[in-house]
Amino acid sequence: MTYCVGLLVDQGIVLASDSRANAGVDDVSTFCKMRRFEAPGDRWIGVVCSGHLGITQAVFAELDEQAAAPMERRTQPSWRDASTMREVANLVGLALRRARADQAQVQSMGVMMASSFIGAGQIGSQPPGLFMIYDQGNFIEAQDGTRFFQIGEAKYGKPMLDRVVDAKIGLDDAAKCVLVSFDATLRSNLSVGAPIDLACYSAWTLAPAMTWRFGENDPYFESLRASWGASLRQAFLGLPAPPR
Amino acid sequence: MTYCVGLLVDQGIVLASDSRANAGVDDVSTFCKMRRFEAPGDRWIGVVCSGHLGITQAVFAELDEQAAAPMERRTQPSWRDASTMREVANLVGLALRRARADQAQVQSMGVMMASSFIGAGQIGSQPPGLFMIYDQGNFIEAQDGTRFFQIGEAKYGKPMLDRVVDAKIGLDDAAKCVLVSFDATLRSNLSVGAPIDLACYSAWTLAPAMTWRFGENDPYFESLRASWGASLRQAFLGLPAPPR
Repeated sequence: MTYCVGLLVDQGIVLASDSRANAGVDDVSTFCKMRRFEAPGDRWIGVVCSGHLGITQAVFAELDEQAAAPMERRTQPSWRDASTMREVANLVGLALRRARADQAQVQSMGVMMASSFIGAGQIGSQPPGLFMIYDQGNFIEAQDGTRFFQIGEAKYGKPMLDRVVDAKIGLDDAAKCVLVSFDATLRSNLSVGAPIDLACYSAWTLAPAMTWRFGENDPYFESLRASWGASLRQAFLGLPAPPR
Repeated sequence: MTYCVGLLVDQGIVLASDSRANAGVDDVSTFCKMRRFEAPGDRWIGVVCSGHLGITQAVFAELDEQAAAPMERRTQPSWRDASTMREVANLVGLALRRARADQAQVQSMGVMMASSFIGAGQIGSQPPGLFMIYDQGNFIEAQDGTRFFQIGEAKYGKPMLDRVVDAKIGLDDAAKCVLVSFDATLRSNLSVGAPIDLACYSAWTLAPAMTWRFGENDPYFESLRASWGASLRQAFLGLPAPPR
């Protein structure tokens, strides 16, 4: 399983992903599920993924290869020269479809190949965008009213996002909210695991994102979890009892 | 969908269920999913259910019929004369198996018949017990370390239960925790809906449980939800920001 979140607020973008890959409970490993595609001054793009590693790594590899290929050999734009974030989301979706087609024989052997992506970023003077790319390669874009997308094990961590996220919260608060959402998910699903990769992109800077990697024993993440737990218990004790 | 919780603490038992039944999003109705079987001074039993109404209503009807049948016509104990809560859980499991067998032809038409139950109660001088009865009719009992069971849409409301529930919390706190868990679930899943039926049984009283039915606009439930939301936001703002 996996847990990834992408969040779009006025101040910018937060992306986060867990790092657990497992093929059964007795075959667990650690893989980074976040890729950043940065061209300072021109664009910032971040992508997180969920699903079959054979597929998601093939998608990231194709995005790299497209950008590295000489101009004259390209049949389509790469992330470096796509003119809109919508075009970037489409590149991810097309790469996903090709990877699924290339590996179709694997699925016929009964392996679950379903994969999905959250892509976000900003290009030039256009406003930042946040996209969810489905397993089928099509995609949707976040709007007012829906400022975040989740992929993987989404339910445990959704109530906190539902409560707190709106366009106006600051980038730090958005990051805290995402980490609290990860805390709930890590507690409840063993197939979601640290380290947590976190990226915060400040809107209109076109600069590389601030990034963190929080391991299980990271002092900040530990203090956040402890402080959140204590506050919740406190808040809980202050609630009114049922009337008699 | 459905959301039900059963919780066993030293002070007693909390059971709660939502009331939404739906066969598609365009066919929504309200059914109580909780039954109490009370014989003051002798025993208290409460059962909540999830799944196909045709099955769960058949199970409750059989439990009623067993208890109403003249002694000489009975082939097995009823909930009124079962000697342990384990025996009661088994009665529910057996009734479930019979209902599934009676209605097997419905499943062959492609209708999802899976159903499950949480049963809890106390008989005479024995300690209170909490059971989860699976769709297959077998069951498990709560122990130290696992003081609650959920059926139906369990994930949204689980993090709060994981954090707060232990054997030592009072019955009022246990009830509040269950309602907070319902709040998270109601917000996130439209197929879980008010009114919420809540029963609190005080251990060793063998008296009828205190019961409530909280509609969407119930003043207490509304104030609990508002107070909880405000406290969460406050707790959230007090969290440390990610280090730079």
